[in-house]
Amino acid sequence: MKISIIGGTKGLGNWIANFLKNKGFNVTITGRNRIDGENVSKRLGVKYTPDNIKAASQADLVILSVPIGVTTETIREIAPYLKEGSLIMDVTSVKEEPTSVMNECTPKGVEILPSHPMFGPRIRSLDGQVVVLTPVKRGKWYQKVLDFLEAENARVIVTTPQTHDKMMSIVQGLTHFSYICIASTIEKLQIDIKESRNFASPVYSLMLDMIARIVAQNPYLCYSIQTHNGYIQETHEAFLQTFKELKEMISEGNEKEFVGAMSSAAKHLDDLEAALGRSDKAISALTEEIRLLKDSVGEEVGLRHIYSGKIHIGILKDLTPNFAILDQDKKEIKLKLSNVEVLSDVELLKWKIESFPKKTYDVSAVFPDNCDPEVISNTIKSLKGVVTSSVLGIYSGNQITLGKKSVTIRYSVIDPNIRHEVENLLKGFGGLIR
Amino acid sequence: MKISIIGGTKGLGNWIANFLKNKGFNVTITGRNRIDGENVSKRLGVKYTPDNIKAASQADLVILSVPIGVTTETIREIAPYLKEGSLIMDVTSVKEEPTSVMNECTPKGVEILPSHPMFGPRIRSLDGQVVVLTPVKRGKWYQKVLDFLEAENARVIVTTPQTHDKMMSIVQGLTHFSYICIASTIEKLQIDIKESRNFASPVYSLMLDMIARIVAQNPYLCYSIQTHNGYIQETHEAFLQTFKELKEMISEGNEKEFVGAMSSAAKHLDDLEAALGRSDKAISALTEEIRLLKDSVGEEVGLRHIYSGKIHIGILKDLTPNFAILDQDKKEIKLKLSNVEVLSDVELLKWKIESFPKKTYDVSAVFPDNCDPEVISNTIKSLKGVVTSSVLGIYSGNQITLGKKSVTIRYSVIDPNIRHEVENLLKGFGGLIR
Repeated sequence: MKISIIGGTKGLGNWIANFLKNKGFNVTITGRNRIDGENVSKRLGVKYTPDNIKAASQADLVILSVPIGVTTETIREIAPYLKEGSLIMDVTSVKEEPTSVMNECTPKGVEILPSHPMFGPRIRSLDGQVVVLTPVKRGKWYQKVLDFLEAENARVIVTTPQTHDKMMSIVQGLTHFSYICIASTIEKLQIDIKESRNFASPVYSLMLDMIARIVAQNPYLCYSIQTHNGYIQETHEAFLQTFKELKEMISEGNEKEFVGAMSSAAKHLDDLEAALGRSDKAISALTEEIRLLKDSVGEEVGLRHIYSGKIHIGILKDLTPNFAILDQDKKEIKLKLSNVEVLSDVELLKWKIESFPKKTYDVSAVFPDNCDPEVISNTIKSLKGVVTSSVLGIYSGNQITLGKKSVTIRYSVIDPNIRHEVENLLKGFGGLIR
Repeated sequence: MKISIIGGTKGLGNWIANFLKNKGFNVTITGRNRIDGENVSKRLGVKYTPDNIKAASQADLVILSVPIGVTTETIREIAPYLKEGSLIMDVTSVKEEPTSVMNECTPKGVEILPSHPMFGPRIRSLDGQVVVLTPVKRGKWYQKVLDFLEAENARVIVTTPQTHDKMMSIVQGLTHFSYICIASTIEKLQIDIKESRNFASPVYSLMLDMIARIVAQNPYLCYSIQTHNGYIQETHEAFLQTFKELKEMISEGNEKEFVGAMSSAAKHLDDLEAALGRSDKAISALTEEIRLLKDSVGEEVGLRHIYSGKIHIGILKDLTPNFAILDQDKKEIKLKLSNVEVLSDVELLKWKIESFPKKTYDVSAVFPDNCDPEVISNTIKSLKGVVTSSVLGIYSGNQITLGKKSVTIRYSVIDPNIRHEVENLLKGFGGLIR
């Protein structure tokens, strides 16, 4: 199957190209910048052409991943050239406009499947990710795409373009937009955010982090969503109206109305108890980790970088509000607390076993004839620090007292000192080391 | 030291009364409702009087914990009767007004220490909690209170009433108030929040949870903070202005200005990278737990209720988006996922050891004379499921072959089946069970 990705050199289009190439598909990408295109083509091992029409006309599946602002003109550009029996999909964050333009311009015999993958290009697999589909009709391609996504463990939501855009006007038009306004107001009032964090609780701190997260998004994408979703204007109006009303209740001293409005808004939200429970958990996950580290100063800790996955192991020398300082073989390293997570003892041990060179030793000991070498080997394996252990041989001939046998165990360790513990175990049960 | 808490029958005042009584202080509470007062007095073992003036005039330390709306009139009521050399504190969520009224009305020789404990009455200790102090002058009482709070491991912030109220106008006037407006807008637009969660990411879900958390607060307290903080009106105005401006950029298609405003707001926030890191961790703590449970269907799991601390153990029979269903000795129990956290293997084992009855057994086995009974006992103790183990006796007389000795170990287990494993271990090393 030939797949063409219109706008595959950057962002999500690029992610899709890489993902589908790795799944074994024959992928062609397009993009206006020829140098970028050829670089990506080489890096991912996909074909590149700057010609959207050429790419679209040869493909069984065309995926449109261009900025929202040029989506409809790109649909109009390529639609007449789509192959009979092929499928066109888009991945735009609004759905009404692209769906209706695809419907209008695409020749008969071409299936249309508008979509909105609700994730960014940082993810590694589709596992658990939400993909919204707004099919015009559920044809054979629809089923194929659905099966593919479900096999990848994605959470597929099938709905209408209207419902999608209405919901997004809340997610992005109301919450994201308000968050941006909060951040912009903080800037306007020249408030020192760092200072304000000192005053308040972990709840407030996480609130600020969530605001920062939204405000740090690509502002161009954010702008196009705000301008291309037909429901957002109404949402902004409704928010503005509500804010004015509540503000007036405060300035006029109208306690009864304010309390009524707040209680009623709380009731309209879904399960408040669950919301409290989840946010409590999120907050305590952050504070618990700090508590854990506080108790580990002077001890060995393992810290995993949450983005790179790199693991740092060392003696925790000091802990400041923002950094952990590790002593690592006389070298001191400073790690930002927000970017690392603490490994549990089990994880730390597992990592050491996987990462450090192991040394293998053989040990022979004489035990009564009725002993079970497998039990002896398994007991050695259960010692902390022993990585593997197995029975290498059993011997009971010359040199060995009658009624006894010699058992040889081969085991591996990271720390050679563990050898003493192995020998102490064998001697402890009356074994004679040979 | 005699401490009177004006308004000690409910909320934070009640919490403080209980806390100080447990620390050994001589505590009197007041409160308008005589029945409530006498009940609390009996329950906590503190004195009660409905007479604020009487309580205030006899105390070395007076703590004012009444609703914001009646704080100033209560200060005026009691101030003339305060003892020379005593201290008056309040715990109101705004600081400018109470501080200036206390300053004005309190007789010479009485120290004033306005405060704002930044926590609610659900906490169990002061460990890690923030307490803001806005002292007018740093006298002997100031140092005493500071030492006390620091000994309790509270995070004390000393600042001016102006700085406090300005910061709170952001924390509560800007963020909390906007969140309430978002929730109220959602209600006005009749959006089904549950449906909207399906569409979006864990980020959005946590955003909603944080909004719900704020909106679920006591609306009366929220109203009084909004009306009594002198900076909040200005903050509301600034937000309204900003919202209008950004909204206009969207409706007029002014991309450049919108992108500029959003980027600049992002830059003004403190460390964005840290904010992303922390919120990523908070979100992954929630999704990770679900993933862990998904992998454990059919296996034994332990779930701790995050509020009551109660632990439920059973076979995880099924997992729905909101519930975990446990099979517990043929009884089926349904637990809300948002209210429970998953125990690690280590925690689960620890809980079992603490909670289940233990059975004690003695076992004797014959080993070569050169064996070390302590090593044998320690090896038994390291078996999974063994709780304690110790050497009970060593015997090497009649009945025992020459060159051998009999070792008796006393060990305890929860599951009697572990006995077989203990015997297998001893036999495995050639021991003869007697």
